Amino acid sequence: MSKRALISVTDKSGVVEFAKELNNLGYEVISTGNTFKMLKENGVNAIQIDEVTKFPEMLDGRVKTLNPYIHGGILYKRDDENHVKTVEEFNIGSIDLVVVNLYDFEGTLKAGKSHEEIIENIDIGGPSMIRSAAKNYKDVTVIVDIKDYDMVIDKLKNDDLTLEDRKKLSYKAFSTTARYDALISSYFAGEVGDNYPEILNLTFQKEQTLRYGENPHQHGVLYSQPNAKNPILNYEQLNGKELSFNNINDLHGCLEVMREFKDNEEVVSVAIKHTNPCGVGLGKNSLEAYTKCYEADTVSIFGGIVGITSTVDAATAQKLNEIFLEIVAAYDFTEEALEILKKKKNLRVLKLAKIEKSLQPYDMKFLDGKLLIQDKNNSLADKYETVTKVAPTKEQLEDMEFGMKVVKNMKSNAIAIVKDGMTLALGCGQTSRIWALKNALENNSDKDFNGAVLASDAFFPFNDCVTLANEYGIKAVVQPGGSMKDQDSIDACNKYEMTMVFTGIRHFKH
Amino acid sequence: MSKRALISVTDKSGVVEFAKELNNLGYEVISTGNTFKMLKENGVNAIQIDEVTKFPEMLDGRVKTLNPYIHGGILYKRDDENHVKTVEEFNIGSIDLVVVNLYDFEGTLKAGKSHEEIIENIDIGGPSMIRSAAKNYKDVTVIVDIKDYDMVIDKLKNDDLTLEDRKKLSYKAFSTTARYDALISSYFAGEVGDNYPEILNLTFQKEQTLRYGENPHQHGVLYSQPNAKNPILNYEQLNGKELSFNNINDLHGCLEVMREFKDNEEVVSVAIKHTNPCGVGLGKNSLEAYTKCYEADTVSIFGGIVGITSTVDAATAQKLNEIFLEIVAAYDFTEEALEILKKKKNLRVLKLAKIEKSLQPYDMKFLDGKLLIQDKNNSLADKYETVTKVAPTKEQLEDMEFGMKVVKNMKSNAIAIVKDGMTLALGCGQTSRIWALKNALENNSDKDFNGAVLASDAFFPFNDCVTLANEYGIKAVVQPGGSMKDQDSIDACNKYEMTMVFTGIRHFKH
Repeated sequence: MSKRALISVTDKSGVVEFAKELNNLGYEVISTGNTFKMLKENGVNAIQIDEVTKFPEMLDGRVKTLNPYIHGGILYKRDDENHVKTVEEFNIGSIDLVVVNLYDFEGTLKAGKSHEEIIENIDIGGPSMIRSAAKNYKDVTVIVDIKDYDMVIDKLKNDDLTLEDRKKLSYKAFSTTARYDALISSYFAGEVGDNYPEILNLTFQKEQTLRYGENPHQHGVLYSQPNAKNPILNYEQLNGKELSFNNINDLHGCLEVMREFKDNEEVVSVAIKHTNPCGVGLGKNSLEAYTKCYEADTVSIFGGIVGITSTVDAATAQKLNEIFLEIVAAYDFTEEALEILKKKKNLRVLKLAKIEKSLQPYDMKFLDGKLLIQDKNNSLADKYETVTKVAPTKEQLEDMEFGMKVVKNMKSNAIAIVKDGMTLALGCGQTSRIWALKNALENNSDKDFNGAVLASDAFFPFNDCVTLANEYGIKAVVQPGGSMKDQDSIDACNKYEMTMVFTGIRHFKH
Repeated sequence: MSKRALISVTDKSGVVEFAKELNNLGYEVISTGNTFKMLKENGVNAIQIDEVTKFPEMLDGRVKTLNPYIHGGILYKRDDENHVKTVEEFNIGSIDLVVVNLYDFEGTLKAGKSHEEIIENIDIGGPSMIRSAAKNYKDVTVIVDIKDYDMVIDKLKNDDLTLEDRKKLSYKAFSTTARYDALISSYFAGEVGDNYPEILNLTFQKEQTLRYGENPHQHGVLYSQPNAKNPILNYEQLNGKELSFNNINDLHGCLEVMREFKDNEEVVSVAIKHTNPCGVGLGKNSLEAYTKCYEADTVSIFGGIVGITSTVDAATAQKLNEIFLEIVAAYDFTEEALEILKKKKNLRVLKLAKIEKSLQPYDMKFLDGKLLIQDKNNSLADKYETVTKVAPTKEQLEDMEFGMKVVKNMKSNAIAIVKDGMTLALGCGQTSRIWALKNALENNSDKDFNGAVLASDAFFPFNDCVTLANEYGIKAVVQPGGSMKDQDSIDACNKYEMTMVFTGIRHFKH
């Protein structure tokens, strides 16, 4: 009795050679529709599916393999006497190898086709065959990935395609059908407008195995969501070592701060350390922006990463090279600048895609088997409402917006003290708000805070922050407001002739 | 022509009543195996599947619905002349409603059954019918959830089951098959030992819609992973308001610190603010542990959450009630203690399940459409190696281990200064290491650090931390080691007659 292989593929690369090898190995090849045509035209010895099903392909191919002669031939247990008797009785031939790749639902989606076309590209027969074969992996080999053709042929030639091999192929098969339906389900979620469904299926594609995780004793891998729209981590690496887990995490933090300034006319430069900004500067050009970003904190930036929303020129590159950085990421680099940066062989130089507004619906925190999901925080301020006797100047208002953009992207509790589009002092990740301010000021005790603006990611529970700010000559405060004791802080501001503005939007980030 | 419904369900709750309603609405009911038997016995007017398929159920039920008379009847387009002609020609009757719930793969898995039984509980026919019907939702209604029986019957009675309704049911159908195969694929991942597969499918079940997310302008939802083993967020709520997004996030942080002490004989009490510990104390009983945890930082704990790894007694409850807390979580509460805590109506009181070692394979960070995954950090120290002339005392060594357990769970850069199983000063989330130390010391300038131990989550790049620690009377340091300039810090320790111990494991956490 010769073995039989069923081949039904959308991506036909390599299938002719593969099928010929199967012929050579003594396999009878069964095939469907266009696959059959192609195999025959290329000299493969194949029979058409309806010879097996005793039923025509019908309904524009919607029904061709959903048939007991197919599924019985795949699913019967070879070591079960009754099963063997049944298939013999009904003249159902064994199918020992199932080779299927699915209608290109993902491609149809990405090509922006019509709803009808997208629906038509939901494969029904394919997943059924894949799943039948995968379930019966003890007796049947399933191939869902053209990259596995060679391995399977080699193993068949040497007669060493093991149970373990078939189990792995079965695993891949179920991963593939799970991913396929996750993408369909996610498409429907968009169609019916359901961001937080009862069942949430997320599918990811491995992009890169990293050297290690957050620490050397942890493995780390970067995955991407095939259906994510415009993920912000989008760059071409022009120089340097491979990015590490922490690099990618920090880079994401950097890009999110840069995104706050995507509509600014000025250039922004952001330095990140341990995912928190340590310096942010606005300037007319990359040199001015970076210089302010650097001057903001000349210590923490060491070993950090720097992002710039413009083309880096030679002068900026020169200045960037003066300190040790892990990454320089910018929209572009002049030839000369790139040459300068490339002198540091390990420095990762990234050419960024234009940063757009986020198209991801959510942020997620994975907590040991639970998942906290929330809307991505795409807001900045509801208003800029003066709540004190003194109103802010135009310059102060600009710095207030600048400060909120920075403080929003710092770990809570967070305080940013800024002036003229530059951070002067940042305090973050504190368990008490006054500490965030105190630490910011004390860590930068050499600086002059006269005329600076203080931005806070959340309201002040007491008037201590305003009082301390005044001691350092800070005369303008921006914060969400919303404390039961707001009035205490307002009173303190009025007493010290400070201005305070409420934005109405809190920005906790943990 | 009467409409036809196909019913094939594993969970048979409510199916008889539902099928009777369908009969009343003029539906002919087609059914399979045990479902058919049950319907007939309960007076439903039903026909058996093989009357439709003209083929027997076979192979122990492995093949019964994989048949063109079924799938043709589901999949043909009612508004396509050729399709209609084809089904008429082949005498394929229309199937307008498909009601399927799947073999209980998940239950079989959770019941710890054999591999063979688990494999046998992979449904093949069910997902095929569900997917056929869901694809053709324009013409066909698909029900995968018994909770939808009433809604569909009501709508059918009023003749207002709309296209939009069918689309939503179709969405649910694909979510269900995606989840089903994600669980199968995850089972196989375990079988073949693949933690970081090419395709990673994650499926989550909505547990609770939260009042809002990290901030009031963001929606927030808690999901759980159906196949997660022993997730640490496992409790019974005995009092108080519903947990918020930030509560759950903080509670997770609290439990992870408590987990470090799961094998300690002593009781540990942990206070958390903004996901970082602000106080940790070890004691012979809940009162001693909590008192140390509270004394560690009597300011930050305000509005925080407290966890205790023992039974809370009345005295501890009394003391807990003296300040405003969001959550008190403990292994148990005496009746009296609970009564005291319940006086605060809003205080969330949680009775925790015993905290075990983590069984989750990974931690994940979702970055705007990309996913960084790593092994969960389940290590503490590789060694406790003295690198200085002075060796630590037994008490110092104990505090070193205590300090590492705390600092490991703080946002980097992190420093913990501890003594006698109590945190004296914590500095975290800093962009510079010396700042973490400086801030810890300066924020607690009223404390006596003589004899305390300094723990650092990562190595010292310079000797400045050792020098500063010495100024405050700290004579023992524990850190991973591994800096190019380790010797500078060792030399400084020797100069000041301090002891320093290397653990060999870095604990960055962002």
